Amino acid sequence: MTKKIILDTDPGIDDAMAILFAEAHPSIEMLAITTVYGNATIDNATRNALYLKQKFHLKADIVKGTNKPLNRPPVGPTVVVHGESGFGDLVPPSDITEKTDPRPAYQYIIDTVKAQPGEITLVAVGPLTNIALALEAAPEIVDLVKEVVVMGGAFGMNGHRGNVTPYAEANIHDDPHAADIVFCASWPVVIIGLDVTQQSFFTEEYLDRLRDDAGDVGQFIWDVSRYYLRFYSQKVGLKGCHVHDPSAIAYVIDPALFTLRQGPVRVVTDGPAEGHTIQKFDTRTYQNDEWSSMPAQQVGISVKDEELLKLYRQSIVDYSRRAQEE
Amino acid sequence: MTKKIILDTDPGIDDAMAILFAEAHPSIEMLAITTVYGNATIDNATRNALYLKQKFHLKADIVKGTNKPLNRPPVGPTVVVHGESGFGDLVPPSDITEKTDPRPAYQYIIDTVKAQPGEITLVAVGPLTNIALALEAAPEIVDLVKEVVVMGGAFGMNGHRGNVTPYAEANIHDDPHAADIVFCASWPVVIIGLDVTQQSFFTEEYLDRLRDDAGDVGQFIWDVSRYYLRFYSQKVGLKGCHVHDPSAIAYVIDPALFTLRQGPVRVVTDGPAEGHTIQKFDTRTYQNDEWSSMPAQQVGISVKDEELLKLYRQSIVDYSRRAQEE
Repeated sequence: MTKKIILDTDPGIDDAMAILFAEAHPSIEMLAITTVYGNATIDNATRNALYLKQKFHLKADIVKGTNKPLNRPPVGPTVVVHGESGFGDLVPPSDITEKTDPRPAYQYIIDTVKAQPGEITLVAVGPLTNIALALEAAPEIVDLVKEVVVMGGAFGMNGHRGNVTPYAEANIHDDPHAADIVFCASWPVVIIGLDVTQQSFFTEEYLDRLRDDAGDVGQFIWDVSRYYLRFYSQKVGLKGCHVHDPSAIAYVIDPALFTLRQGPVRVVTDGPAEGHTIQKFDTRTYQNDEWSSMPAQQVGISVKDEELLKLYRQSIVDYSRRAQEE
Repeated sequence: MTKKIILDTDPGIDDAMAILFAEAHPSIEMLAITTVYGNATIDNATRNALYLKQKFHLKADIVKGTNKPLNRPPVGPTVVVHGESGFGDLVPPSDITEKTDPRPAYQYIIDTVKAQPGEITLVAVGPLTNIALALEAAPEIVDLVKEVVVMGGAFGMNGHRGNVTPYAEANIHDDPHAADIVFCASWPVVIIGLDVTQQSFFTEEYLDRLRDDAGDVGQFIWDVSRYYLRFYSQKVGLKGCHVHDPSAIAYVIDPALFTLRQGPVRVVTDGPAEGHTIQKFDTRTYQNDEWSSMPAQQVGISVKDEELLKLYRQSIVDYSRRAQEE
């Protein structure tokens, strides 16, 4: 049985890798790509999504989302990681004929979830602003969404604490208020944070092989990731890149790849730890515990990284073969 | 060479254990006990300190401190842990003749530090309000204090994260703004948090033996700890108690008992993680890093607990012998 998803994303290089992974795997039906500011400006992120739709003939609707966080001042696009265009060295052509859905992303999410109650998984791999806006405008969707799968946050496991500040991950840091709203809502949320996304690694050789073995899509993943790999090499000191956004898609395809930990999750919204994510995962009672009444969510604590890497490769290679046969 | 300390404290049962430890050990000269609200009200905490001064003929001045945190609404005394009086089942007599110094604690700290530049170690085992008030009133003391040793916080090591909320320790939770001021100041701070204080444990048998072997002082420590041990037994599920406040004194006596980790420390001052302490302890650079310019402080990550327990016992037993000989 296929899983219907709306992929909320800020493409973004690893977002592109995630979009193509979702498109590639037969168990996922990607109804829409809703865009959000984050790795790129909202205009660039939306253009990049339209470009992917045109280039790879995606069936997914492209829906433009919000251009700013709920409360905090915008952080601005992550040019150092994703480049000025959001797609690294690539600049999509100006003659894209694909168009966005006329609705704002949050309204599209509300309409689609209401039309197919219990059917839709929201997969969010950017700042959580669109999802929070949807929840605020139509709180009843909390009972109609099948599951919310988020790439974001860092829970201090395995030494992973943050990437844009010492204690915050970029997606959550971009809009901590939205993240807190999404995590505190009484729908099932699975959070795949840096704790696990940094356990999986695309080496240079892995990406070279994908380019050689997966036709246009492999070539595109290779091309779009050159800038990203330069960032990793120069700033992080690694030859290759972590598997951030595709890990959320991997969870949708095969949850058994991940070990999860249950408990309420909150987000620090202000001050030096702004964007820091924390989970109460024990059953101890405390004198002051505003967490005790909150819904338990699931946080990834480990991943079978080699299996994930195989799944990604196989999905992209098979997708390329199918595309060539058509 | 003896170390001159001002002990800022909210007695409090483990505070009493710490006060007597400082008094007992010949390497410490305790110039003053400055009191603060926290485990008890400021009036009870001050009366308890005066009671100890009278009962054990302490030379230390007793100086009354502030009754409330800098910004946040007061949490109130921790009656469930320390009892209504702050000394568990004990209620000090009403006819205490010892008097407090006329100055407020923060002024006493300023005056004493200025009179003996480079000589004074501030040891704080309660909320950090007095110390922050002293810093605000006389910022120049930052260069005149020898060292600040704090019992407080929890840095997530060894599974220790909080005791009054899932992510906050009581002293810091009582006044997170004051703690952030103290940790961010450019004086050397050593923080002994739950990460290490929960590694040392006074068993029931340990306290029984201390009662049997250390005269009046052993008997007092046993008496004052009955309520505390009931709390531990009923609420924490342990037979005995962790060695919280005395661990800060142990650090002053023998720093080599502790392994420390260096890096700037901040405190979350609002929201669900209010009072959460976090340290940046790697050298990685981040896109947004308001920590990079901050002074590195030291956080305890492990303790030689058996040696600490021996040191405490030996100090108290020797002190009792000396008292009997006089």
